[in-house]
Amino acid sequence: MKSDIEIAMAAKMRPIREVANALGIHEEDLELYGKYKAKLSDTLWEKVKDRKDGKLVLVTAINPTPAGEGKTTTTVGLGQAMGFLGKKAVIALREPSLGPCMGVKGGAAGGGHAQVVPMEDINLHFTGDIHAVTTAHNLLASLLDNHIHQGNSLQIDPRQVVFKRVVDLNDRALRHVVVGLGGHAQGVPREDGYMISVASEVMAILCLAQDLQDLKKRLGQIIVAYTYGGEPVTARELKASGAMAALLKDAVKPNLVQTLENTPCIMHGGPFANIAHGCNSILATRHALKLADYVITEAGFGADLGAEKFFDIKCRKGKLKPDAVVLVATVRALKYNGGVAKADLGAPALEAVKKGFANLEKHIENLQHFKVPVVVALNHFVTDHKDEVAFIKERCLAMDAEFAISQVWEKGGEGGVELAHKLLETLEVKESGFQVLYDEKDPVKAKVEKIATDIYGAAKVLYTPHAEKSIRRIEAMGLGGLPVCIAKTQYSFSDNPKLLGRPKGFDVTVREVNISAGAEFIVCITGDVMTMPGLPKLPAAEQIDIDEDGRITGLF
Amino acid sequence: MKSDIEIAMAAKMRPIREVANALGIHEEDLELYGKYKAKLSDTLWEKVKDRKDGKLVLVTAINPTPAGEGKTTTTVGLGQAMGFLGKKAVIALREPSLGPCMGVKGGAAGGGHAQVVPMEDINLHFTGDIHAVTTAHNLLASLLDNHIHQGNSLQIDPRQVVFKRVVDLNDRALRHVVVGLGGHAQGVPREDGYMISVASEVMAILCLAQDLQDLKKRLGQIIVAYTYGGEPVTARELKASGAMAALLKDAVKPNLVQTLENTPCIMHGGPFANIAHGCNSILATRHALKLADYVITEAGFGADLGAEKFFDIKCRKGKLKPDAVVLVATVRALKYNGGVAKADLGAPALEAVKKGFANLEKHIENLQHFKVPVVVALNHFVTDHKDEVAFIKERCLAMDAEFAISQVWEKGGEGGVELAHKLLETLEVKESGFQVLYDEKDPVKAKVEKIATDIYGAAKVLYTPHAEKSIRRIEAMGLGGLPVCIAKTQYSFSDNPKLLGRPKGFDVTVREVNISAGAEFIVCITGDVMTMPGLPKLPAAEQIDIDEDGRITGLF
Repeated sequence: MKSDIEIAMAAKMRPIREVANALGIHEEDLELYGKYKAKLSDTLWEKVKDRKDGKLVLVTAINPTPAGEGKTTTTVGLGQAMGFLGKKAVIALREPSLGPCMGVKGGAAGGGHAQVVPMEDINLHFTGDIHAVTTAHNLLASLLDNHIHQGNSLQIDPRQVVFKRVVDLNDRALRHVVVGLGGHAQGVPREDGYMISVASEVMAILCLAQDLQDLKKRLGQIIVAYTYGGEPVTARELKASGAMAALLKDAVKPNLVQTLENTPCIMHGGPFANIAHGCNSILATRHALKLADYVITEAGFGADLGAEKFFDIKCRKGKLKPDAVVLVATVRALKYNGGVAKADLGAPALEAVKKGFANLEKHIENLQHFKVPVVVALNHFVTDHKDEVAFIKERCLAMDAEFAISQVWEKGGEGGVELAHKLLETLEVKESGFQVLYDEKDPVKAKVEKIATDIYGAAKVLYTPHAEKSIRRIEAMGLGGLPVCIAKTQYSFSDNPKLLGRPKGFDVTVREVNISAGAEFIVCITGDVMTMPGLPKLPAAEQIDIDEDGRITGLF
Repeated sequence: MKSDIEIAMAAKMRPIREVANALGIHEEDLELYGKYKAKLSDTLWEKVKDRKDGKLVLVTAINPTPAGEGKTTTTVGLGQAMGFLGKKAVIALREPSLGPCMGVKGGAAGGGHAQVVPMEDINLHFTGDIHAVTTAHNLLASLLDNHIHQGNSLQIDPRQVVFKRVVDLNDRALRHVVVGLGGHAQGVPREDGYMISVASEVMAILCLAQDLQDLKKRLGQIIVAYTYGGEPVTARELKASGAMAALLKDAVKPNLVQTLENTPCIMHGGPFANIAHGCNSILATRHALKLADYVITEAGFGADLGAEKFFDIKCRKGKLKPDAVVLVATVRALKYNGGVAKADLGAPALEAVKKGFANLEKHIENLQHFKVPVVVALNHFVTDHKDEVAFIKERCLAMDAEFAISQVWEKGGEGGVELAHKLLETLEVKESGFQVLYDEKDPVKAKVEKIATDIYGAAKVLYTPHAEKSIRRIEAMGLGGLPVCIAKTQYSFSDNPKLLGRPKGFDVTVREVNISAGAEFIVCITGDVMTMPGLPKLPAAEQIDIDEDGRITGLF
């Protein structure tokens, strides 16, 4: 069997200008990055902005399991299937971070016969967007420490710096550091830490900005520290936002690439799905909606986190109206949710599927709560048993969710035709009555409780004293009226990764509350949230190589 | 008077594919980065490699003074002048680092009417080469710390890690840090530090590599630490070199841009000129020599450092034969060398010029020592007095150095016609008998002493006990037969920045000796060498802004 990179490298890519042309984009409105990547120029928007929007379809999934669900693969394959059926479709994805690619996970551009290419470029530096985010972020950090060193006229308390540094690598040793050592000429010593770049508030801002000026305004709003008197200090006060926006001038432009079957894919932005909202950029989605009749996009993690934030943060702020949701599940994952061990997932286990269905059921209910039509995509594995599939289908239909089997990993777009047909039919027949979950003007706790009870199914929400204090501070600063972004384990509806299926009666504990005043959301952290992954004992990087012809191996 | 960025933004750029076409490069051998930047594809080399080389001209300067010499401006202007005269010329420059651009210095792509454009792109992220170097470097650092954390089977002594991390910013607070804090799950605590990215050995390697495989081999040779037993540990032992080379697969390709007058400029690589050799890449220079009849390149700092390393490291390793050297000086800088204060440089001071000429004289002698014909370019200022110019000219001619006045900052290529004519005449009439200064197989101290006495004019070289020990270790490892790269103040021939003119009878003290086993040179450090600049009280970044049309201001 071929590896993902082998399939990707054997792909017959079209020059990206041809892919763009097929979307009606002229070369003058493209900025090429080699032959197979491009950015959409500023000039394009003026030409397309008055067009009617295409249909917006979100692909999300049940809670991830070690069995693998294939959300990105399904997204890509569905886009390919739409193309296969002659529909004008664009896929809108996040761009992958380099860190995990060197760690455990490998690439993040789909898999099998449903991939975005050029896979190796996309997974390494792509068009440099993440590097630009890293640089803009760290420029702000350097200006902050320089300010403290050069007299500290803003009276920044070095013990209350909340803006860490970032690097786009998995680097455990940088989680907790002390900077400014070496004597009085080398800065002021203080505790600091690094996050992976995609956890940067700058990335979240890039993905939520309406345009370059909104980007600059939001960058200026970032709270980097508090003074000795407890007042917030912003990037604007450090005079950083102009230079940061200048550094992001190209990063803010959406990127165009293609799938293995030449379906256009706009891949832009990639914020973390825990402390941020986990969706590609509003600018990218807006462009896609003007360029195609169907836009297939995805959100991070399971639907409890990804779809909720897509709706309540991205769609709210971007004034986007999703027309349908595709909810990805697998028989294997439902079995896992039903109590089967990972090693045994290949064997038939109808009872476990029935039990595990509760997880899928709750996700369907949740999505319907947002009044968006749902299509369940069952990502096919050879070990799936007929009875298991029949059960899932029946239950989905009984809930007024459509159902289709997807085989895109194995067969590419052709394997997604059933799913594409069901989706097209749904878009034709069912009207979306999309509505957000809560009023953003509600008190912080009311918003958290709404999400926790309605979406997660929690009994109640508990707050640590530290979290209580932060909420009071945020409300006192007049920032309580922003949407909330909950950081929670992706593996369970609850804040305990071990509670699979559809847990009930549990409490959610908010440990820490932070304000992303530039991204304009309030981050509520439950459980342990890792913003800097470590490398495993055998890092993926050790396997990566490049031969004398420039062919990369070991990237998967 | 217009600022550099105003002049640059008013430039009428040609699409880079046209600039390439004029050099005989077809679009299939280009990788475009937007409309005005491109990389030269791997496919190009095969097509041009058997061509005859053009003439190679190095532009260097006297020791820099606060008066400003305009070395890069002269390089760019000379290239423009060659184009103005209808000659097929290519300029080969280093790419600027972003750090200084946010600090004091502003951009680094020439000035006035002799600039490389698009100036704002070149100074911000350009084609991402430095980000790729940063990432490859820090990947190695993360693999190193991960190795120590995951059992440390190589027995790396955390107190003897010699490979720091890098960031492409001026960030004083990162000079000395402690990493790995936070408990046993967060790595092993140790002292660490950051350098600016251009000080990375990876950058030096990129600029000295013959091809991708040589790059990978050299990356593997980087010594990152020593074991408890004192044995070196390399990047290859950490299995890092394949992934690092993969990360550099595009960075290794030379970049093509243009001047304000559309002269082609290959801008590629930018290693520090103190702890590294300060020249653009061998690959870029080789490509330039195949594409043009005349290649105008430059080296960092003054000729004592820049030209010496260009000859003894880059030309030796790249098998390049320079045909002529242009040595840039100004009346103002000679006055400064003659004892005039910066504030008084505008007034005539013939006696000071006569005294300060000693600096220029020694540089001419040095360059002639390498048996390369010399043309002195006097970068014109309105305050220059006729008698001062006449004196300098007379003395240059008496030394068998050609002489020309350059006015490229004010007039662009037309202002460099006199210089271009003198250069063409020199190339026609005088044969280069280029030879390196020393035999690289000589003992380390013999090589250092040769440079210090012959080039700097020192009486003798002293070594700290620490330096002595390092030399013994390097020779014991069998690496003593590499060229030496001396890190010394750029402001004086001596290791004391205050000794201007032509100091004599001084000693040079080697404080520290390090091995860059991947770059394949031995770094001998005299005086204080700063590998991580700090930001000033009023950082340039504070002035940088971008308006709603994406126009950048404050970058200079």
